[in-house]
Amino acid sequence: MIDNGFYYDFLFSNPVSESDLKDIEKEVRSLVSKKIEFKKEALTLADAKKIFADQPFKLELAEEYAREGKELSVYRSGDFVDLCSGPHVENTSEINAEGFKLTKLAGAYWRGDEKNAQLTRIYGLAFESKKELDEYLKMQEEAEKRDHRKLGKEMGLFVFSDLVGKGLPIFAPKGATVKRELERFTIDEEIKRGYQHVITPDLAKVDLYKKSGHYPYYKDTMYPIMKIDEEELILKPMTCPHHFMFYKSEPHSYRDLPYRIGEIAHQYRYEKSGELSGLTRVRMFCLADAHIIAAKDQAKQVIKEVLELIDFINGNLGLVKGVDYRYRLSLGDRSDTKKYYKDDNAWNYAENVLREVLTEVKAPFFEAANEAAFYGPKIDIQMKKISGNEETAFTVQYDFVMPERFDLMFTNKEGKEEKPIVIHRSSIGCLERTIAFLIEHFAGAFPLWLSPVQVAVLPISEKQNKYASEILAELKDAGIRAELVDKNETIGKKIREAETQKTPYIAVVGGKEEENKTVALRKRKQGDLGEVKTKDLIDRLSREIKEKALD
Amino acid sequence: MIDNGFYYDFLFSNPVSESDLKDIEKEVRSLVSKKIEFKKEALTLADAKKIFADQPFKLELAEEYAREGKELSVYRSGDFVDLCSGPHVENTSEINAEGFKLTKLAGAYWRGDEKNAQLTRIYGLAFESKKELDEYLKMQEEAEKRDHRKLGKEMGLFVFSDLVGKGLPIFAPKGATVKRELERFTIDEEIKRGYQHVITPDLAKVDLYKKSGHYPYYKDTMYPIMKIDEEELILKPMTCPHHFMFYKSEPHSYRDLPYRIGEIAHQYRYEKSGELSGLTRVRMFCLADAHIIAAKDQAKQVIKEVLELIDFINGNLGLVKGVDYRYRLSLGDRSDTKKYYKDDNAWNYAENVLREVLTEVKAPFFEAANEAAFYGPKIDIQMKKISGNEETAFTVQYDFVMPERFDLMFTNKEGKEEKPIVIHRSSIGCLERTIAFLIEHFAGAFPLWLSPVQVAVLPISEKQNKYASEILAELKDAGIRAELVDKNETIGKKIREAETQKTPYIAVVGGKEEENKTVALRKRKQGDLGEVKTKDLIDRLSREIKEKALD
Repeated sequence: MIDNGFYYDFLFSNPVSESDLKDIEKEVRSLVSKKIEFKKEALTLADAKKIFADQPFKLELAEEYAREGKELSVYRSGDFVDLCSGPHVENTSEINAEGFKLTKLAGAYWRGDEKNAQLTRIYGLAFESKKELDEYLKMQEEAEKRDHRKLGKEMGLFVFSDLVGKGLPIFAPKGATVKRELERFTIDEEIKRGYQHVITPDLAKVDLYKKSGHYPYYKDTMYPIMKIDEEELILKPMTCPHHFMFYKSEPHSYRDLPYRIGEIAHQYRYEKSGELSGLTRVRMFCLADAHIIAAKDQAKQVIKEVLELIDFINGNLGLVKGVDYRYRLSLGDRSDTKKYYKDDNAWNYAENVLREVLTEVKAPFFEAANEAAFYGPKIDIQMKKISGNEETAFTVQYDFVMPERFDLMFTNKEGKEEKPIVIHRSSIGCLERTIAFLIEHFAGAFPLWLSPVQVAVLPISEKQNKYASEILAELKDAGIRAELVDKNETIGKKIREAETQKTPYIAVVGGKEEENKTVALRKRKQGDLGEVKTKDLIDRLSREIKEKALD
Repeated sequence: MIDNGFYYDFLFSNPVSESDLKDIEKEVRSLVSKKIEFKKEALTLADAKKIFADQPFKLELAEEYAREGKELSVYRSGDFVDLCSGPHVENTSEINAEGFKLTKLAGAYWRGDEKNAQLTRIYGLAFESKKELDEYLKMQEEAEKRDHRKLGKEMGLFVFSDLVGKGLPIFAPKGATVKRELERFTIDEEIKRGYQHVITPDLAKVDLYKKSGHYPYYKDTMYPIMKIDEEELILKPMTCPHHFMFYKSEPHSYRDLPYRIGEIAHQYRYEKSGELSGLTRVRMFCLADAHIIAAKDQAKQVIKEVLELIDFINGNLGLVKGVDYRYRLSLGDRSDTKKYYKDDNAWNYAENVLREVLTEVKAPFFEAANEAAFYGPKIDIQMKKISGNEETAFTVQYDFVMPERFDLMFTNKEGKEEKPIVIHRSSIGCLERTIAFLIEHFAGAFPLWLSPVQVAVLPISEKQNKYASEILAELKDAGIRAELVDKNETIGKKIREAETQKTPYIAVVGGKEEENKTVALRKRKQGDLGEVKTKDLIDRLSREIKEKALD
C-alpha cells in the first residue's frame, strides 16, 4: 500500500514490459468480477514451508518471522495464496474494477539490497470510483506538464552545469529577474512594516553554531569545517545566531521591542545527490529570514502581525488562503525530553499563544502532534501543490531556548534586565523553492509584476522594425520589461512563441498601427484587446505592475 | 626610505619614548644647520670589522655582503659613520630642516624575525618644504578623522563580532541600506545598458577552477576544499568560470554579441588576519562583476561603453574624473612568459585597443609596465584617497586566454565557428570597499539618495509628537527614508545629534509649523531653509532622490 495505490514485486521467468500491463489489468478485472473471497489462515512454520516450498523469498520471510516469534498467516483468494498479516476486503466485489489502474514497471532488489536478486515491481492506483481515478490521473498529467524543471528549461529561467556542481542552479537572466523581483518586494514590504534589514556574512566560526546548539543537531547537513590558519570556519546553515550577535552588539530597552531583524540570507545545506531536485532541493538557497525579539507579553501581537504579512505576500502572489495554503500548528511532546527542550510551562504558554492567534484571526489550520522545533512550537505554512500534495513552505516558530543560550536581554520599564522571547519566521520562504512552486502553480504564467518579459513587441513585417524599436525604448524608459521580436518569421509564429513563453502582453505593430501611433494589444488568457495608443499601453502596464494586478 | 619619509632602527641602552622625539628633532636640526658633508668610502671586510667592532648587527651585514661578493662601503657625516651603499645628498645644507619631522616609535625585530633582538624603530617624514609637510600632516589628520572603521561604528553602519569571525562584517540596518541602494542602482543601470543579469552559486566543484587555471595561481587565497561524499567543493573566488558555463549552456550567433553577463557576485578570499582592515580587506565580498563576450573587432566599442558606464556611476556618486579618479593602463612584459600568457600578437592588439580607447575618449590615464593580468592587459580605475594615496578600486581586463580554455564560441556571419574575446570588468567595484571609500570620501555625509536616513523629523516639544509622526508617515509613504526623533531632549541637542549622523535634511516642527502644516527645514552644509509646506518637502526630496542630486 502506498498513497493512492499499491505495488507488488515479482520474479518473472519471462520478462514483462509496460505493454503487458493492459492485459494484466484485464485479467485482474475478470477476477474482481468473480466475487472471490479473501480468507485468512493462521499457520505453523512447517505449514508455511510446505505451501511456499518453491518460493524462496516467502520461505525466507516465514523463517524470519518464526525466529522473531511473530504470528504467521496467509490469505487465500481463489487459487492464489500469499503470506500476509492483512487486513483485506472480504470479497473482490468490494473493489471497484473501474477505479483501478496499473501505472508502471520498475526494477527493485529483494529487500532493497542491491546484492540481492532483482525483481520486477508493478505499480498500480486504486480509488473507490472511476471518477476519482480520472481526476487523479488528470492532476498527475497536469503536474507533469507544469514540472518546474521542464518549464524552467523551456522558459530559460535557470540551468545546471555539471562542472559547477549538482544542486547549484545558475539563474539565467529571466529567472534572475523573478528572483530579484521577489527579493525586492519582500525586503521593501518588510522595511515598511518596521523590520530592520541587515546583511550578515555567508560563513562564520564553527564556535557560533556550537554556542547556538545547532552544530551537533544539524552537523550531517552542514558543509565540512574549513580549517585555515588558526580558524575553523563553516558555511552558514541558518541565520539565527548571526542575528543574535547583531542584537547583542548594543544594549536594548523595552522601547526597542519588538525588534525585527530581517535578511534575505544565503544558507547552505549539503543534501545527498539522490535528494536533489530542480530548485526544490538545492545545496545553497536564499531564505527570507527574520528574528523578532520581543517581550513575552508581545508574542501574540507579533505572531498576528507575521500572519498578516504572510497573507499580504501570498495575496500579491495570487495565492488564496484556505485554497492554496493553510496553517499547521505543530506541537511538542512534553514527555520526549530528548527531542524537545524541557520546560512544560514555556511549552504550554507558547502553544496557547499560537493557538489563540490562529483562532482569533480565523486562520484555516489544523494541529499536528510532535512536529515542533526543539526550541518551541511552530506554525507551518502548508502550500497545496498542483499534484494535490501539501508541503510545508516555511514556518513561524516560537523560541524560548535561544534567548537563554545567547543571553539575550532587554531593560524593562522597571529598569531591570529581562529575557525576551524570539519568533523565528519567514515571510515568503526560500526563494528557490518559492520560484519552483510558483512556476508549477501558474504553469509558468507569472503575474505581470513577476514576469521576466512583461510585454513582447512584434512587428508584422521588417518595415515596422523601426517603429517597434521606438515603442520598445519608450516601454523600457518607463521601467517596463519589454522585448522586441524582430526575427524574420510570420507574425503568427511570433505570437505563438510569445504565448509559449507565457508573456502577459503582446503588442503587434503593422502599417496601420504605425500610422495611428498605436499597437494591436493581446493579453494572456483574454486574447485580442484591440488597438491601443502607445501612451495608454504604458499607463496601463505601469499601473498594473505597481498594483501587482493578477490575471 | 619609505613614502614621504624614512625610518631607522636602533638598539638603545636606555629606552626612548615618544616624548623624546622633540629633543631628537632639535638635535637633528642643529646638525643640519652645520652643513656637514656626506662622504663615501669603499672598504675591505677587515676595515669594516675594525669600524663596527662593537656593532654586532653591522658586522653581521658586512660579513654577509662580503660573502656574497658585494662591494662594501660606508658613508661618513661628521663623526657618524654607517654601512651604506648610498646615494646621499652631498651636504646637510641640501636638507630643509623645517620640512622634516619625527612621527612615531615602534618595536621592530632585527631583520624582521621575531626570534631576533627587538630594536626601536623611529619613523620620520621628510619634505622639501615646511608647506608640503604641513599639508601632508593636515591630510593625515583628516584621514584619521574620516577613517571608515571609526565613522562606520559612530554612524551605526556595520559591526564585527568575535564569535562570527574576523574580516566578516555584519551590515547593520543603516549600512545594509547603503549597500542595497548601491546594488540596486548598479543592477538597474546595467540592465538598462543591455547587460543580462544572472545569479550564480557561491560555491562550485574545484574542477571548475582547475579548468579555468585559477586554482594553481590563486590557491593560497582560496578557502580550503570541502570534501563530502564524492564531491570536492570550494567557495567561489571569482565569477568568470561561472559566467562562461552559463554562456556555454546555449549556442550563440554573432547577433547575440556583445553578450554582457552581469552579476553582483559573492566572492570569497582568505586574507591573513594581519591584512584585514574594516570593510577594505574582508574575507568575503560582493563584486559588481561582468564578462562581456564579444567579437575581436567589437573590443574597442565594448571598452568604450564600459568606460562610459564607469563615468556614469562615478558621476552619480559625486566622484569627478581626473580629480577623484583616473585610469592606469597596465601592460604585460612579452619576455616574462612565466607571469604572462605567451602570444605577442594578441598582447600587441589588446594593448593597442585599450590605449586607443583611452586616448579617443580623452581619459586621464598613465601607463604602467608589468601590471597586467596573466591573460591580458587591463585598465585600472585608480581612486584618490583622502590620505593622498591612490588605490586601484577595480579593473577592466582584456582576455584572450579564457575563450581558449573554456572553448567559448559563436557562429559568425559566414556561418562559421569563431572564438570571441572576453572583457572582464567591474562598474562600481567591490561594494564593501566602495562603501569604505565613500564613507571616507564624504566623511560619512553620503549623497541624499544613498543616505541611510534622508530626513530627520524633530518635534520641538512633546506637544508636536503627533503632528511629527503624521509627517513621518507621509514621508515614508512616499518612499523617503525618514526618522522621528521624539526623545525627551532639547531641540538643540536633537539637531546636533542629527548633524553628527550627517543626516541630509532636518525637519523641525513646533507649534507654528503644526498650525501652518509646514516644517522648518534645515539642509546639511546649507543650514536653515525656512518654513516649507509638507507637500513641498516631499516633492523636493522625491525629486532630488530620483535625480541623485549631490550636495
